[in-house]
Amino acid sequence: MKTILLITTGGTLDKVYFDALSEYQVGNAVAPEILQRMNVNFCYEHKEICRKDSLEITDQDRALIKQAIDGCEHDHVLVTHGTDTMVQTAQFLGEQPEKTIVFTGAMQPAAFANTDAIFNIGTAIGALNSAPKGVYVAMSGQVFLASKVYKNYETKRFEDNE
Amino acid sequence: MKTILLITTGGTLDKVYFDALSEYQVGNAVAPEILQRMNVNFCYEHKEICRKDSLEITDQDRALIKQAIDGCEHDHVLVTHGTDTMVQTAQFLGEQPEKTIVFTGAMQPAAFANTDAIFNIGTAIGALNSAPKGVYVAMSGQVFLASKVYKNYETKRFEDNE
Amino acid sequence: MKTILLITTGGTLDKVYFDALSEYQVGNAVAPEILQRMNVNFCYEHKEICRKDSLEITDQDRALIKQAIDGCEHDHVLVTHGTDTMVQTAQFLGEQPEKTIVFTGAMQPAAFANTDAIFNIGTAIGALNSAPKGVYVAMSGQVFLASKVYKNYETKRFEDNE
Amino acid sequence: MKTILLITTGGTLDKVYFDALSEYQVGNAVAPEILQRMNVNFCYEHKEICRKDSLEITDQDRALIKQAIDGCEHDHVLVTHGTDTMVQTAQFLGEQPEKTIVFTGAMQPAAFANTDAIFNIGTAIGALNSAPKGVYVAMSGQVFLASKVYKNYETKRFEDNE
Repeated sequence: MKTILLITTGGTLDKVYFDALSEYQVGNAVAPEILQRMNVNFCYEHKEICRKDSLEITDQDRALIKQAIDGCEHDHVLVTHGTDTMVQTAQFLGEQPEKTIVFTGAMQPAAFANTDAIFNIGTAIGALNSAPKGVYVAMSGQVFLASKVYKNYETKRFEDNE
Repeated sequence: MKTILLITTGGTLDKVYFDALSEYQVGNAVAPEILQRMNVNFCYEHKEICRKDSLEITDQDRALIKQAIDGCEHDHVLVTHGTDTMVQTAQFLGEQPEKTIVFTGAMQPAAFANTDAIFNIGTAIGALNSAPKGVYVAMSGQVFLASKVYKNYETKRFEDNE
Repeated sequence: MKTILLITTGGTLDKVYFDALSEYQVGNAVAPEILQRMNVNFCYEHKEICRKDSLEITDQDRALIKQAIDGCEHDHVLVTHGTDTMVQTAQFLGEQPEKTIVFTGAMQPAAFANTDAIFNIGTAIGALNSAPKGVYVAMSGQVFLASKVYKNYETKRFEDNE
Repeated sequence: MKTILLITTGGTLDKVYFDALSEYQVGNAVAPEILQRMNVNFCYEHKEICRKDSLEITDQDRALIKQAIDGCEHDHVLVTHGTDTMVQTAQFLGEQPEKTIVFTGAMQPAAFANTDAIFNIGTAIGALNSAPKGVYVAMSGQVFLASKVYKNYETKRFEDNE
């Protein structure tokens, strides 16, 4: 895997804290900085679609993600996305017989000491390297087909929907 | 992937600092604690082979690792190992047509704030989920066949040996 | 300094992220866990007054803080508090000729990798050990008399109000 | 406190890991970067005396530290130093009736996620702000007179020697 397309949309992964507002907002995409810090030996092209909580992601945003994927020359695409509608967006892409596309995100912001962001991005990169063409969700230490996964709010894990 | 065998051998990944000795030593294996903290939804059986710098790993240790793998009922095996002889140990296992076996480790100890340990274990888990049967090294954001990788000390990355 | 009273009220210091709510809330007081992790060699009695953003702290809460201080046998009191009204609460205590009382908090939650929480609590502990009786605010690497400090929202620092 | 002299000498505080050597060495002084990250509102002049494990600090090094302090115009001096001979170096300075001088260091390197470095530097800064003229050691959440402290290797704390 020499190069990937990195699509970022926001989500908990990218949330930072603004003291002046005493609130939490989606900030810069953290995935590029994480890949650099981890000294990975592949290149990535970064395309930012939006900076949204995934509950605010619209089908218009999803169309933009699909366009970016359909239009790119990359065989491998990593999409960072909020967890609440990650599965919905992954399924929106439909069959993708020509590319390996992996979605990931985080339950705790990357800015946190105990975030799952770095681990999840790692899992997604491992799947990108190894999985057949298709659309996947890499969360909770699993790599799911987009059609066979849901977020379980009780266990705070992504699980097989069968 | 419902369950894996986790084999730990030590390496930089597990190094901690002993103030009383003013030195650095291989401590408890960190992988189990990381998998728990990341709230993964698969089970693992943990087998500790040794706690060594990989330069001190012997063929006797390698035979024990091979035994543990040959003897287990798991289809998926994660091996944490120091980076200097990781490739050598991975190749020692030979062909493994019936299991997916992934080696990983770290350039910086898991105890460090800027460690690559969590990312690398994530990459290995992504590969375990997705890769065909065989023996792999998951480092530097890549998943390599054990026969086609080396550690490049200049770039501080694992790279394709072709 | 053998023992202190630790009064906690909430604030950014204690903010954690709730994925299920996609929001940020004041959680358990982090100061006790930090003092334990830092292996300090003094004892503390912990009294939780409330778990509030400091904009929500009322004079009733302030009266409870004052009561707790007036009623205690400790000569040294550490108060953790949100930054927006920290000075107001510190001044509410009036003259305190018999105790050393130090307020601190954080601009970034303790849960963040790059928090100022641990440093600020350290500064407050240093002041508690060394300052004469009175009421102080320990922020931005400074120890201010409660009567001579304000939060500068532009520089994101506490500064001398003279 | 508008400005301080920051003297750095190395110690566990500054230890980093060199993968190529599979060993741990004293690296760049971390205190300046920590003070910047904590956004303190005082200035500091940084003077690096050496980069040594404190067991290797000689009386010649100590003489250089004393010279730097005697020669400076600052009223406040922070010295970062390894813990094993920190007390010895602090006592080497003798009486210092005209300046407040505080020594600190760490039991775990600043590079570690669970380091005590940031907390200890905070404690030292709090003491610098508040303590009378003299020479102090700020460790374990305490501010000791240099003449009344020792490192207890069993409790892993600095304690009163009386």
